[in-house]
Amino acid sequence: MAGSTFGTLFTITTWGESHGPALGVVVDGCPAGIPLTSDYIQTFLDRRKPGQSKFTTARKESDSVEILSGVFEGYTTGTPISLIVRNTDQRSHDYSKIKDCYRPGHADYTFDQKYGVRDYRGGGRTSGRETIGRVAGGAIACRILEALGIHLTTYTKAIGPFSIPSDAYDYSAINENRLYMPNQKYAEQASAYLESCIREQDSSGGLIECMIHGMPSGIGEPVFDKLDACLAKAVMSIGAVKAVEIGDGTEVSTARGSYNNDAFVMNGYNVDKETNHAGGILGGMSDGSDIIIKAHFKPTPSIASTQKTVNKSRDNIEVSIRGRHDPIIGPRAVVVVEAMTALTILDLIFENMSSRMDKIIDFYK
Amino acid sequence: MAGSTFGTLFTITTWGESHGPALGVVVDGCPAGIPLTSDYIQTFLDRRKPGQSKFTTARKESDSVEILSGVFEGYTTGTPISLIVRNTDQRSHDYSKIKDCYRPGHADYTFDQKYGVRDYRGGGRTSGRETIGRVAGGAIACRILEALGIHLTTYTKAIGPFSIPSDAYDYSAINENRLYMPNQKYAEQASAYLESCIREQDSSGGLIECMIHGMPSGIGEPVFDKLDACLAKAVMSIGAVKAVEIGDGTEVSTARGSYNNDAFVMNGYNVDKETNHAGGILGGMSDGSDIIIKAHFKPTPSIASTQKTVNKSRDNIEVSIRGRHDPIIGPRAVVVVEAMTALTILDLIFENMSSRMDKIIDFYK
Amino acid sequence: MAGSTFGTLFTITTWGESHGPALGVVVDGCPAGIPLTSDYIQTFLDRRKPGQSKFTTARKESDSVEILSGVFEGYTTGTPISLIVRNTDQRSHDYSKIKDCYRPGHADYTFDQKYGVRDYRGGGRTSGRETIGRVAGGAIACRILEALGIHLTTYTKAIGPFSIPSDAYDYSAINENRLYMPNQKYAEQASAYLESCIREQDSSGGLIECMIHGMPSGIGEPVFDKLDACLAKAVMSIGAVKAVEIGDGTEVSTARGSYNNDAFVMNGYNVDKETNHAGGILGGMSDGSDIIIKAHFKPTPSIASTQKTVNKSRDNIEVSIRGRHDPIIGPRAVVVVEAMTALTILDLIFENMSSRMDKIIDFYK
Amino acid sequence: MAGSTFGTLFTITTWGESHGPALGVVVDGCPAGIPLTSDYIQTFLDRRKPGQSKFTTARKESDSVEILSGVFEGYTTGTPISLIVRNTDQRSHDYSKIKDCYRPGHADYTFDQKYGVRDYRGGGRTSGRETIGRVAGGAIACRILEALGIHLTTYTKAIGPFSIPSDAYDYSAINENRLYMPNQKYAEQASAYLESCIREQDSSGGLIECMIHGMPSGIGEPVFDKLDACLAKAVMSIGAVKAVEIGDGTEVSTARGSYNNDAFVMNGYNVDKETNHAGGILGGMSDGSDIIIKAHFKPTPSIASTQKTVNKSRDNIEVSIRGRHDPIIGPRAVVVVEAMTALTILDLIFENMSSRMDKIIDFYK
Repeated sequence: MAGSTFGTLFTITTWGESHGPALGVVVDGCPAGIPLTSDYIQTFLDRRKPGQSKFTTARKESDSVEILSGVFEGYTTGTPISLIVRNTDQRSHDYSKIKDCYRPGHADYTFDQKYGVRDYRGGGRTSGRETIGRVAGGAIACRILEALGIHLTTYTKAIGPFSIPSDAYDYSAINENRLYMPNQKYAEQASAYLESCIREQDSSGGLIECMIHGMPSGIGEPVFDKLDACLAKAVMSIGAVKAVEIGDGTEVSTARGSYNNDAFVMNGYNVDKETNHAGGILGGMSDGSDIIIKAHFKPTPSIASTQKTVNKSRDNIEVSIRGRHDPIIGPRAVVVVEAMTALTILDLIFENMSSRMDKIIDFYK
Repeated sequence: MAGSTFGTLFTITTWGESHGPALGVVVDGCPAGIPLTSDYIQTFLDRRKPGQSKFTTARKESDSVEILSGVFEGYTTGTPISLIVRNTDQRSHDYSKIKDCYRPGHADYTFDQKYGVRDYRGGGRTSGRETIGRVAGGAIACRILEALGIHLTTYTKAIGPFSIPSDAYDYSAINENRLYMPNQKYAEQASAYLESCIREQDSSGGLIECMIHGMPSGIGEPVFDKLDACLAKAVMSIGAVKAVEIGDGTEVSTARGSYNNDAFVMNGYNVDKETNHAGGILGGMSDGSDIIIKAHFKPTPSIASTQKTVNKSRDNIEVSIRGRHDPIIGPRAVVVVEAMTALTILDLIFENMSSRMDKIIDFYK
Repeated sequence: MAGSTFGTLFTITTWGESHGPALGVVVDGCPAGIPLTSDYIQTFLDRRKPGQSKFTTARKESDSVEILSGVFEGYTTGTPISLIVRNTDQRSHDYSKIKDCYRPGHADYTFDQKYGVRDYRGGGRTSGRETIGRVAGGAIACRILEALGIHLTTYTKAIGPFSIPSDAYDYSAINENRLYMPNQKYAEQASAYLESCIREQDSSGGLIECMIHGMPSGIGEPVFDKLDACLAKAVMSIGAVKAVEIGDGTEVSTARGSYNNDAFVMNGYNVDKETNHAGGILGGMSDGSDIIIKAHFKPTPSIASTQKTVNKSRDNIEVSIRGRHDPIIGPRAVVVVEAMTALTILDLIFENMSSRMDKIIDFYK
Repeated sequence: MAGSTFGTLFTITTWGESHGPALGVVVDGCPAGIPLTSDYIQTFLDRRKPGQSKFTTARKESDSVEILSGVFEGYTTGTPISLIVRNTDQRSHDYSKIKDCYRPGHADYTFDQKYGVRDYRGGGRTSGRETIGRVAGGAIACRILEALGIHLTTYTKAIGPFSIPSDAYDYSAINENRLYMPNQKYAEQASAYLESCIREQDSSGGLIECMIHGMPSGIGEPVFDKLDACLAKAVMSIGAVKAVEIGDGTEVSTARGSYNNDAFVMNGYNVDKETNHAGGILGGMSDGSDIIIKAHFKPTPSIASTQKTVNKSRDNIEVSIRGRHDPIIGPRAVVVVEAMTALTILDLIFENMSSRMDKIIDFYK
């Protein structure tokens, strides 16, 4: 598939380059009968658009989305939904310096190795703007999950050394600071840290966490399409993510079974768990607890300080990347992690519908 | 696909339960003309078979593989290769205790929630024996990668608190100890630690690392089928894995760009990198450096100490899981991580063949 | 996928060669809770097995099927079902004549062109025995369709010039003659015709028709995965089929709209059609009427009379193919057409479950 | 996938409704380095656009295509190519009559049965305008095939009773008449016939044939993804096609093996065939001869004469469909058949690249 389509039953196909005329997405397999407006999708895009704070690029883009198909009289019709966002601030620019240079930490070199050519304007397809299609498609997935009583909360858990412990979360703070951190005090410390990064012509990594509440149990397919496996792919496919954790994540490799096992316990008529080290997934299927997923983002590779590198002609050179760049990727990627998570679980929720013969017979009665 | 098929061009479809008559795999999309014997595949299966040490289950299985199709006069023919391993030590057993009990850390509960029924004998499809098909299929992928000059080295980096620093690796030690650790001293310490786990009726987590050497650059598809995204899915789909890291992994979220960026530098006529924080992948494509992937395994959930849980009738009960269980999953999973990694990169290597028009024209000349 | 897997949600992956140790299929995505025995599957395999009449190969195969996984205590568990049929009559044989010869009408030449090698024993993977996996998998699909009130009737409509008009169908005759024709008189004429073909060292083509009754409306996905498109692929993928028709089929290209349009008309509370030229499919979706599909099979290419051809060394040669060959493919392929049809519609029935939001909400309530 | 994506390696995802703001396609998996302009694609779209003759709808659409991504400095970059065509003549219209009426031969009823709602303006997604995305995507496939020396010729073989025998083909005539018939005399007769259809408020079926010249041998995957099976799906997925034939097609069911088998014969150093009843495909793989495929189109279901039908409220009613409708679908679908054929063979040509180990080793050397 060459990698621009995601999903099996509910799919998105994204397209577009940073400095081309537009970017967009085609959402296929969307059920009919869902109320949908471009305003709803816009609220998701607004969470990732540039210019929200001093920590985001100065590029001016309204990132306004237009619905071109698949919605009729305010409702989805079951046909593919085409969404488009026009690029408006593709400054005419002198790219001669960057054209043949392989910027460290970027995909310039690998793209050239694979394709022989590349659209070097602003990173082309490897720009963060590529995530516009993911977010627009993910918004529709979230719309459907809401109707099924499933809610996602996504936030910045850590920036550089400033990591909020789970017991210090204040979800109401998430939208109170431009870093989307669930603790106002940590947000202030992280903000000061990012300012120092900028002063030092440097950038910072960050950690995004997504919590899924209200997930029905039994979602995910055993063996290769486990819920956690699909989530790992979805989230690792976001540029700059270098590690994905479910529940306790990396801590499990140093833990003991007596600690790591979550005891089942009855909670009224419901099966519950005393702890949730597993992060809501057992054997690749949801167990009804909250699902916890963490994504580690590397620091923005574009930094103003001087770096060694090579160019297309195979010369050793030096480069200093100036321009419109965020000192951290994380906060603007919060909604991207949420989008990819939503797309993944929705697809598996649809796939799960044919898992039991009794329910299929009921469905077609 | 219900999750039992992995891959796009080079695919494996696995099947089988712990206590059914057999387990196996169908490998499809295998190129014609590869010399292949069951002996070759057997060397991979022997690395995961039980009874290798005191840390592995006492179940006696030779795990002998038989080739049923796709190989003719010692060479692959391009048609699907069916491989089968008979179960021989399915002790007749009293399963009445375990039948209705939801063991903590296992998939009993989620399986019942999804399907309404389950084969409770030895975990059925969720048993570690499920990985036989992965390993047998992965062996064939490794055979092909060898012919392309790509070599995988996989080992146990850490067991519980005993983690080998990268600069203390001694690859020659890997096959000298039953824990597959690249340092004999650490292996002895880890061994003592595992014995204490057994004495305390407990189990330990572990960390497996895979290094890919000789990878051509440009492999991986931008956006959703990035090389790292595909690897993350492949490895996270192995039961008990709760976190996957590429290169520096989780450390990137606390790093700065000036540190994390790998400077490109000419090495004779070749583009090289001064460091490899990226773990050989940039923008989802291989950059020609070694690829490093880490998989964190949780402790074996089957422990002999008493645990609280519930049963199918929704009663709170206690359970103590005795029987043939490893105190750690990691070492026997080393070859499973290798298999899944090999399958993933091979599939993307095939997919990459149609990425450039000039090379397609050459191919069909 | 290299072509050995069929389906999206309910999939079969087939494997095996004519003269290898066995052939088989892995069925994945089969819902849990279906009563299933090998005896049930055997009834389908018996309809295609050799030795049923003088018009089928003298090869002696019981084609006994064994279930290796996915069924527990008589019911499917939702895990992959592996089915195997051992080859028993692979006569040791002198293949030196056939080994390098490209038999007219066979895939010897194209196989060599694609793969460079081939298993020349009895046609290898291109043998009609390849359909064993299809039929075994299709049997399970039929089992599920039955439970949903959908019934398939498949029969030989024509052999050579003897074609039964629709108004002469007597479905009760289908199992009364070894040609599976729905008219005993035509069956006798066709039988005499086939005897003359044998005498003349020749073979005959045939036409198989499948009728699906009880199909719910709205099955099939608009645009590329139309119900008729999927059926066409499924049936054309059977070796020797060279044309597929839906409803009036080829006749539509000479018809006029006023004749070809089927008028809708109320039948009590149900929407019905006065005619069924469309064969039960409109816009790629089922309309609730009977679905009619026709598959045209070419004559068996293995004939005893002398034919001109070439060999691997590029010499012009003559060949006369003696051995165990049916003078017609059609009748033994009746159950193969039924199997492929059943697999196709079941997969689309599953895929249809996520087409409407209101039904998804009901499902997960 | 809900049916709007076609292909495995070279894929198109189409979207758009007849009376929405636009229609389009995303082409993914297109190799880098192909010279491509919107003018090239436009030449294909112009072959299907309305208003070419008295036999096509009076709707005025320039169907101008815009490239939104994936092309840089005149060459493809390997990233997805997004193509858009704006609808310009969506007359504001009174749809009250048609809104609740199920037009005979149309998908109104089945769409409502599947989705509960539908965009009734001009057929919505089931309009013939849906094929714009296919043709635009197919144009790019043809561009690549040309570079590989593969040429497709597509034409109207028959309209109603006027069918051109193969030995009367004059390919130079195809673009000399608006019916795209390879014989000027037949075109005139067919033209007169269509005029009589219009006068009688009726419509006519037609037969389109596509011939592929220069196809390399060995393309197509054995078993389910046979070249002919994939072609059958591709072509049957075009609205109004009710039968697909390869080579001799339906005639094979009445033929004898001695006639139907094509004798191989050396032609200089090349393997050739004396006849081509097989239509260039043996065992699901191309044999190097011309590939012949036929698609039978039903008559346009929209006719002005009065027809019986029912409405959404389940009343028996009468309907007469006036408006902008072609009296025949065939000629404008010529380029659609060509597009679907090109997409299919290109995808299999890419898939074939990993079929032999020796060629893979050469490729990565």
